[in-house]
Amino acid sequence: MTAAKLDRVFHERGRLAICSTLIARSEGLSFTRLQEACDLTDGNLNRHLYALSEEGIVKMERRTGNGRPQTILRITDAGRRRFLAYIDALEEIVRDVHRSAKRTESPVRAVPARTVSQ
Amino acid sequence: MTAAKLDRVFHERGRLAICSTLIARSEGLSFTRLQEACDLTDGNLNRHLYALSEEGIVKMERRTGNGRPQTILRITDAGRRRFLAYIDALEEIVRDVHRSAKRTESPVRAVPARTVSQ
Repeated sequence: MTAAKLDRVFHERGRLAICSTLIARSEGLSFTRLQEACDLTDGNLNRHLYALSEEGIVKMERRTGNGRPQTILRITDAGRRRFLAYIDALEEIVRDVHRSAKRTESPVRAVPARTVSQ
Repeated sequence: MTAAKLDRVFHERGRLAICSTLIARSEGLSFTRLQEACDLTDGNLNRHLYALSEEGIVKMERRTGNGRPQTILRITDAGRRRFLAYIDALEEIVRDVHRSAKRTESPVRAVPARTVSQ
């Protein structure tokens, strides 16, 4: 079954949002900006980032410059490859479902029954 | 955020397996066959089928003929439409991620650092 190939670590809406956002920003993103982009609560974002960094998918960097210190989040090279493999598995499912749906769609059903019987 | 558009009811690997299998079989599938196709335990399959039928996505039919009575599972027309909308949302994410990944991939990184500095 194709769904079994889906890497569990990414198959959660919040984590998908986080990784999709980070893969678009190789320069990294602050916690606040990432939170805005993903529309997650502090607690949820922290929880997911913890899990993703435990897996070596995301890394955090404390940046101090002018102004307040910031936490910058980045997707790692290994995380990027692993996320893209997950995306490939999703694509395979999308393709399979489209193929099945096309094969089983009933054109008669789209026409109201009354029109057919008149 | 695109991930927020994903219908929660389908965004679970077991449910994705169930719906992908049922959309390919408009004639329906017995509980046992569905279980084999999805590789889920009795308990998990039952739990997901209950949730999916509560939402009107799946219907169960008790079929009695020659031999033992069987439970036949089918995806409803409404379920089919809703599942295909979820699949479209997945496809949009796949497309977005591919676009981002292409934009941010670093061809330099593929070359060993030593070769570059020599």
